[in-house]
Amino acid sequence: MTRRKSTAQIHALKIDEKRASTRKDLVAVEEPLEIRIGDESIAVTMRTPGNDFELAAGFLFSEGVIHRPADVPHISYCNADPQEYNIVTIQLARDVGFDRKRLERHFFSTSACGVCGKAALETIRVHAQPIRDDFAVEVDLLFSLDEKLRKAQPVFERTGALHAAGLFDERGKLVFLREDVGRHNAVDKVVGAALLAGKLPLARHVLLVSGRSSFEIMQKALLARIPVVASVGGPSSLAVDLATEFGMTLVSFLRGRRCNVYAGKQRVRT
Amino acid sequence: MTRRKSTAQIHALKIDEKRASTRKDLVAVEEPLEIRIGDESIAVTMRTPGNDFELAAGFLFSEGVIHRPADVPHISYCNADPQEYNIVTIQLARDVGFDRKRLERHFFSTSACGVCGKAALETIRVHAQPIRDDFAVEVDLLFSLDEKLRKAQPVFERTGALHAAGLFDERGKLVFLREDVGRHNAVDKVVGAALLAGKLPLARHVLLVSGRSSFEIMQKALLARIPVVASVGGPSSLAVDLATEFGMTLVSFLRGRRCNVYAGKQRVRT
Repeated sequence: MTRRKSTAQIHALKIDEKRASTRKDLVAVEEPLEIRIGDESIAVTMRTPGNDFELAAGFLFSEGVIHRPADVPHISYCNADPQEYNIVTIQLARDVGFDRKRLERHFFSTSACGVCGKAALETIRVHAQPIRDDFAVEVDLLFSLDEKLRKAQPVFERTGALHAAGLFDERGKLVFLREDVGRHNAVDKVVGAALLAGKLPLARHVLLVSGRSSFEIMQKALLARIPVVASVGGPSSLAVDLATEFGMTLVSFLRGRRCNVYAGKQRVRT
Repeated sequence: MTRRKSTAQIHALKIDEKRASTRKDLVAVEEPLEIRIGDESIAVTMRTPGNDFELAAGFLFSEGVIHRPADVPHISYCNADPQEYNIVTIQLARDVGFDRKRLERHFFSTSACGVCGKAALETIRVHAQPIRDDFAVEVDLLFSLDEKLRKAQPVFERTGALHAAGLFDERGKLVFLREDVGRHNAVDKVVGAALLAGKLPLARHVLLVSGRSSFEIMQKALLARIPVVASVGGPSSLAVDLATEFGMTLVSFLRGRRCNVYAGKQRVRT
């Protein structure tokens, strides 16, 4: 059994107007990954193989289970199983508590007050403070990020089917680039990479996501303390609300030399 | 309390080169929706308000809980709560069994054989047979769908942040168009609309999704018996595997007068 690949070669019928020809084509691999804490299965996510330990660490960080590298002294593929590379087993440090019930409840669950965007934001308030800093970036730096991301994203160029998340430092240098068929997985991989490298919290960094910006993306960025999130696609209402309430900067429709700033415009210098 | 809207008006700082101006902008609304069976909360999903009953019905159909309109004699918003329009309560018919444990296990979960793409496909085999039919469409009909979808998708045109799923009949007529910040929700809304209208199974229909085609999208289409799935974006490996194994046609990169056919090419006439 070898490690899972990120792309697979298959045959496709390419049709251009009326001309049809069979060609080899690369597609992004999608496979389930099971995350275990000790012997206990806690999540299965459909993901693109690669950076699986980071994905598992980033997922547990976003869920509030772990907070620093020392919390996860051991991460391994399960090796008692033919699907060993689709199961990641994490051993938590002895002083790290794990409440399965809390994980299942996630952030908003049935409560007396029901569910709504406001309730979702309120539950985050328990876990995170607003970001207050004097960080700011030139808009020219923002305009440069999309091209940097695409140039460093070899798999997407070949498959057209992967989301990317890129973490940039305050000078616009790419720190981590991760790809996945799931946008939330790409962000978990970036956050997990930063956690395992001892780089959290990510003050004075910019996160760029290739797709749209949703509540979930902003929540993960907030917990990692990333002050500026940019997306190539548009934002959702709750992404804007979260950014506004927690002092984050949200830039969307970042294409060419244009963008819209939906929250935290003091961090964008024009 | 009024019904939730699908779009929200907010102010954005629009930057074009160095010129910045504050303008009103429309964004897609994202809010949690809680789905209840009777008094029991079974799922919370982030969605764009609108067609919530269809979303709940489509979700339960995809999960194998309900199969026909008679299985859901009553769907309503919870009206004992200030967030009434974010909670949908479903009453199942008396002869419909509901096994919460099975729902939690979903399709693939921890089992002796571990998790992998093959195991995921095997668990679907328990629920669905391959699609065998003589249905075929002209490639010109496929080329016409993307424009039809965009013309009928007013919210996306204004927000740029919504996924769309469109169901077309064999003559290329749009039957249902549904939008959502979540692609899987858009498909659940289409399937739920068909279920509640008594139109399932969807033989001789084509489903077009605005984004990429993943395992989850193909799985939902298979259970609704849709023989042809087309996507504007690229496919994942497991989407191709599922289509191949279950006799479905998968068309991707459907843009202008080009497309790639990854499975079931006998249904595409050039």
